[in-house]
Amino acid sequence: MKHTIYSPFDMHIHFRQEEMLRLIAPLSAKTFAGGVIMPNLIPPIDNAEHLLQYQSEIYEAVNGYDFTPFMTLFFRSYSERELLEIKDKIIGIKLYPAGATTNSDAGVKEMSKAEGTFALMEEMGIRLLVHGETHGFVMDREKEFISIYDYLAKKFPRLHIVMEHITTKEAVDFLDRYENVTATVTLQHLLITLDDVIGGYMNPHLFCKPIAKRYEDREALLEAALKAHPKLCFGSDSAPHPIHKKECCGCAAGVFTAPIALQVLTDLFEKNNSLENLQNFVSDNAIKNYSLTKSNKNVTLVKEPFKVPSQYGNVVPMYADGELNWSILSVQ
Amino acid sequence: MKHTIYSPFDMHIHFRQEEMLRLIAPLSAKTFAGGVIMPNLIPPIDNAEHLLQYQSEIYEAVNGYDFTPFMTLFFRSYSERELLEIKDKIIGIKLYPAGATTNSDAGVKEMSKAEGTFALMEEMGIRLLVHGETHGFVMDREKEFISIYDYLAKKFPRLHIVMEHITTKEAVDFLDRYENVTATVTLQHLLITLDDVIGGYMNPHLFCKPIAKRYEDREALLEAALKAHPKLCFGSDSAPHPIHKKECCGCAAGVFTAPIALQVLTDLFEKNNSLENLQNFVSDNAIKNYSLTKSNKNVTLVKEPFKVPSQYGNVVPMYADGELNWSILSVQ
Repeated sequence: MKHTIYSPFDMHIHFRQEEMLRLIAPLSAKTFAGGVIMPNLIPPIDNAEHLLQYQSEIYEAVNGYDFTPFMTLFFRSYSERELLEIKDKIIGIKLYPAGATTNSDAGVKEMSKAEGTFALMEEMGIRLLVHGETHGFVMDREKEFISIYDYLAKKFPRLHIVMEHITTKEAVDFLDRYENVTATVTLQHLLITLDDVIGGYMNPHLFCKPIAKRYEDREALLEAALKAHPKLCFGSDSAPHPIHKKECCGCAAGVFTAPIALQVLTDLFEKNNSLENLQNFVSDNAIKNYSLTKSNKNVTLVKEPFKVPSQYGNVVPMYADGELNWSILSVQ
Repeated sequence: MKHTIYSPFDMHIHFRQEEMLRLIAPLSAKTFAGGVIMPNLIPPIDNAEHLLQYQSEIYEAVNGYDFTPFMTLFFRSYSERELLEIKDKIIGIKLYPAGATTNSDAGVKEMSKAEGTFALMEEMGIRLLVHGETHGFVMDREKEFISIYDYLAKKFPRLHIVMEHITTKEAVDFLDRYENVTATVTLQHLLITLDDVIGGYMNPHLFCKPIAKRYEDREALLEAALKAHPKLCFGSDSAPHPIHKKECCGCAAGVFTAPIALQVLTDLFEKNNSLENLQNFVSDNAIKNYSLTKSNKNVTLVKEPFKVPSQYGNVVPMYADGELNWSILSVQ
């Protein structure tokens, strides 16, 4: 049994820097036509020069693969001049709301400092990508942030707001509330709950932010993905860390899924009799929501076992040493 | 500033076996007058011979310290003859409800298989110590188990049931519902929430079962402890693991607190203007609830900094390398 996906896009990905960049960029570029590259480097990417330099490093790292890195800028207050200079080079600006608190009013208050820039972005049609968590109790952070999304969506009705890596039923429900709000969801949040992270043994390789939530949350996310909700796009949030940062302090947050994402998604959609919706979930929804051009990259998967390596370089992937039901047959 | 505690008891402690037993038993025996020793060894302690052998190993390990190990038996179906033989050698029988499920009816149904033994225990005045968690979602397991406690407390009104290491507001509230139900609470559950385990970095040294819960749960536990609720006893559940089992797979559940418990508790009670209740919480409540004899051991603490070692042998304690405000001055 075979299945072909045209022009798959990963709308949320961490490529890191230097050796890590050179190790992992090709693993995404091999099977994906493009991806939204997160700007949270050290230092963060918050100017045109840094952005263009990182973009050229990425093109070098993907080393010949047909892959488009959709660049993002790290949110700060930007001047009109700065935004005019950079708007055509980015797919959006990524906001990490350090100021937001468990009290969503306070969160909005903090946010209000950024409203000048939001207004300029709305004017120029620059997308706002948001890590939507407050600083509240770990299981409530996303839920609490919904009121901030609500405030922003209402106040800036022409600003395209992307709720990144949603993990709750509340976020799924919120998707339909405003025209200008879309979302991404990761692979792992369609598959795991908090039980997989700390319910039995503690599993540092499934520790990510936002943390996996309850069964009813996973069900809501999976249902929306399987029916390819038009405002929901696949974004792996694939986030590699060297093995020692995952195991020998158990600290780093992030699950590395890029090299197995398409195989696992194909299996998941097939198992749930939704294979016909996978194309929209991993490609067409993104093309519509972000006005992308379809690439000519076609990935054909075959239902044959794929043994997941224990490591890619010094990075442990999800399902390390496990066997997947689908493999990549060819990429054209 | 000094504070003296008479005859402190740790009503829930894991002493393990062999080298680990010899390493940690003295650390409890130095400052505690006695402790309830958990029976979950490999193999579990479920007969008189094994129990007496383990008890003698403990006496050897505490190596001269004045310390009474209150022995427990691992729950299984026991005959009247077996219970008659052993009842005077144990403080209770510890139940790990492997059969209980998220569905509390099913949980009770499983429990019902054990009712013959419960009835005998009630008859003979043998205490039932319970790890009260279902197999449900990690944050709900204790809450779900309350209905099983309710069933047992009602069905066996003369059976003393101990809710071990409670972690939720629901368990605190349940304490007052039945005459025959008391509880223990650990040090860490008075101090941490899930945020400390996975809210920032993942902290394997604070990973324990039951998992730390929400702020409102911690507040309810702390309030009950600070006022020395007469049915609540200190039980550290101090559970050592070799460092490699905590850090390099992040898997083992348990926090090692025995050597710092009294210092931290004294600080906690002083900070909350409840120092006068500490004696009841760590000693007199246990003496009343378990009909213990007060020992002559007096522990005097002084408000002088104590630097917590990074490790005791190969075990990392809570607050490793941290500084506590109170130290042990003398033990008489």
